[in-house]
Amino acid sequence: MTSGRLEAFSDGVLAIIITVMVLGLAVPKGGTWADLVHTSGLGLLTYLLSFVYIGIYWNNHHHLFQLRPAVDGMVLWANLHLLFWLSLYPFTTAWLTESHVAQVPTVVYGLNLLGAAIGYWILQQTITRRPGGERIRAAFARDVKGVVSPLLYLAGIGLAFVVPWLGLVPFVIVAVIWLVPDRRVERFLSAEHVSSPASETDEEDPTL
Amino acid sequence: MTSGRLEAFSDGVLAIIITVMVLGLAVPKGGTWADLVHTSGLGLLTYLLSFVYIGIYWNNHHHLFQLRPAVDGMVLWANLHLLFWLSLYPFTTAWLTESHVAQVPTVVYGLNLLGAAIGYWILQQTITRRPGGERIRAAFARDVKGVVSPLLYLAGIGLAFVVPWLGLVPFVIVAVIWLVPDRRVERFLSAEHVSSPASETDEEDPTL
Amino acid sequence: MTSGRLEAFSDGVLAIIITVMVLGLAVPKGGTWADLVHTSGLGLLTYLLSFVYIGIYWNNHHHLFQLRPAVDGMVLWANLHLLFWLSLYPFTTAWLTESHVAQVPTVVYGLNLLGAAIGYWILQQTITRRPGGERIRAAFARDVKGVVSPLLYLAGIGLAFVVPWLGLVPFVIVAVIWLVPDRRVERFLSAEHVSSPASETDEEDPTL
Amino acid sequence: MTSGRLEAFSDGVLAIIITVMVLGLAVPKGGTWADLVHTSGLGLLTYLLSFVYIGIYWNNHHHLFQLRPAVDGMVLWANLHLLFWLSLYPFTTAWLTESHVAQVPTVVYGLNLLGAAIGYWILQQTITRRPGGERIRAAFARDVKGVVSPLLYLAGIGLAFVVPWLGLVPFVIVAVIWLVPDRRVERFLSAEHVSSPASETDEEDPTL
Repeated sequence: MTSGRLEAFSDGVLAIIITVMVLGLAVPKGGTWADLVHTSGLGLLTYLLSFVYIGIYWNNHHHLFQLRPAVDGMVLWANLHLLFWLSLYPFTTAWLTESHVAQVPTVVYGLNLLGAAIGYWILQQTITRRPGGERIRAAFARDVKGVVSPLLYLAGIGLAFVVPWLGLVPFVIVAVIWLVPDRRVERFLSAEHVSSPASETDEEDPTL
Repeated sequence: MTSGRLEAFSDGVLAIIITVMVLGLAVPKGGTWADLVHTSGLGLLTYLLSFVYIGIYWNNHHHLFQLRPAVDGMVLWANLHLLFWLSLYPFTTAWLTESHVAQVPTVVYGLNLLGAAIGYWILQQTITRRPGGERIRAAFARDVKGVVSPLLYLAGIGLAFVVPWLGLVPFVIVAVIWLVPDRRVERFLSAEHVSSPASETDEEDPTL
Repeated sequence: MTSGRLEAFSDGVLAIIITVMVLGLAVPKGGTWADLVHTSGLGLLTYLLSFVYIGIYWNNHHHLFQLRPAVDGMVLWANLHLLFWLSLYPFTTAWLTESHVAQVPTVVYGLNLLGAAIGYWILQQTITRRPGGERIRAAFARDVKGVVSPLLYLAGIGLAFVVPWLGLVPFVIVAVIWLVPDRRVERFLSAEHVSSPASETDEEDPTL
Repeated sequence: MTSGRLEAFSDGVLAIIITVMVLGLAVPKGGTWADLVHTSGLGLLTYLLSFVYIGIYWNNHHHLFQLRPAVDGMVLWANLHLLFWLSLYPFTTAWLTESHVAQVPTVVYGLNLLGAAIGYWILQQTITRRPGGERIRAAFARDVKGVVSPLLYLAGIGLAFVVPWLGLVPFVIVAVIWLVPDRRVERFLSAEHVSSPASETDEEDPTL
């Protein structure tokens, strides 16, 4: 079983999550700059944050499946589990915005980010336990970002109990950290390419 | 005619159904845990249930088309018929939630689940009657889950007439039953692989 | 330039149109059968009609591109033109429903159906004027349905001016006519296959 | 790393943006032509304009990736940056419509168009700086439209400060300019094809 359809389905869900969040943006009643800032200003900022998060997950997902893992029923469900958490972003983002970053909605947003992070970790673990998974585990040997992110989510959730707005700071930091392109998969694939040119046809497969 | 585009279209519809259901979740007016539980608690539970159901159909659909059935106009319509029933999930899920699991909405939700199950059965029957379909029929020879599920749907519909909430129990049981990964297709394909290594290139096709 | 991405994009748009129409279904306020019929009964019927129409266009589009037409900028725009008309279905369907099949909304619905039919005809014409298009023209030599449909749309639009509900009758007839699977492309491809077995690799391309 | 999945994801986002805009169209309360024009007339016109813009970006994106650029993390983010601006179209289009083309919403719409144009320019620059990018730079050597469009956006934004409706004129002109199919990529690919028939297999790849 190959991963083509799993990727296509995930792409679809992520693409829709992004666009559905735009539907949550309240359109100003009046036609002035003040109306825009008042009605939609906060919504545009939280949309930007959640957009970046979905973009990060899409990028990481894309890199993970570039390594062509074996796919079976467990991997399908681990992937659906990740998508479930991500599919809640439009809901938690809307609540965060409409409550003007109140305490509980900020905590819930942080729990949603944490849930997705755990979902991604489970997906990666599930994949590396499949046949040929050691190779994928090797590509992600040094996973500093993956370790730091959940800690920052917990920090944000904790800070939200003190001052809700402060809780968003670690969430923004995580987003910025991951915006820096992750070259591990590219380096790993080209190192593999050098050491074993026989796998060339596989990597250059135009259908990926 | 191959199945690539039928799969891509179905993936698109299923991906959107999942995400559209999130749009049906009412965002709490207030910013407390009580507001979350009161406004969205039931909605999150019914969303989870319907999410799992769509996930199950996606998984089964994925497995079914791994067997590379012949596709013609009849199969296209059988597939669209299944998608029609699934596309009603956001509607019946929203009614179930907004009525706080009243009798008739629970029955309608069960009828929707039953309709999708019949739609899937018709799709499978249509496929196994095409050239090469005996092979696919063989892969699904023992279909315990497929027989039990409609009975549980009927049980749930019946129970809903007594106590609406009780009707949901069999629906949850069906979801849990199907969460256990179904290895029939994987086993069938690897058995086939062993008995006829000549078909190797076909199964390993990277475009699937 | 090949048609893969044009097909994927069209699949995406059609998949979303279908699902967006479900968002237009009003969820009953009460929890009885009478509430369901009163609030959503008509909406479910018009949804079914429009769903079948989108299904028909998807089927026909799928068959058309099975013939692997040459794709250039003109074909891309002809395809987008068709998608524009189809993208209005959720809007005209919602108006038809909310007005309880009033005269003008029925006429507008018919004009939308007619616009999509003209859009499809332009797409087909554009494709058959590209290099290799004679072959595709040959596959659609006998196009009875394509000639009858616009006449039935015009009949429906005319009848709507007399009794709005009557206008829907020809629209339903067109849907039923097209539900009968169209085997022209399949027959054409297998005839071609017999007369020129050299093209076999092309037709069996698993990436289509 | 190849571009298949980047294209599929972008197709998904663009397909949804188009269809989500239809959700923003207000359905007339009454059932007359006057109701249609009054409630939805302006919305249909702005929808048409934004639909054409999304269609143009899809066409240009499609042509750009026909040249098979190298894809790495930077290209993924440049692409997501473009999609972010495009994802705001439903929001800015809705505000433009609901404010009946007031000054600030027209300016904001123009800024959104400008943002997307800059996003596309960054994507193109990022791609041409990758290995093999000179070839792609050569294909877009004469980029008259790409230079004129931002100037027209600026003109529209300026005019909107005088008379809002006038600001839309340059936006419509840009849309019309780009509707004329761009044959640069097709010409470039067939010139390359003539001068180096060895690359034939690459260009005819059916999976593109």
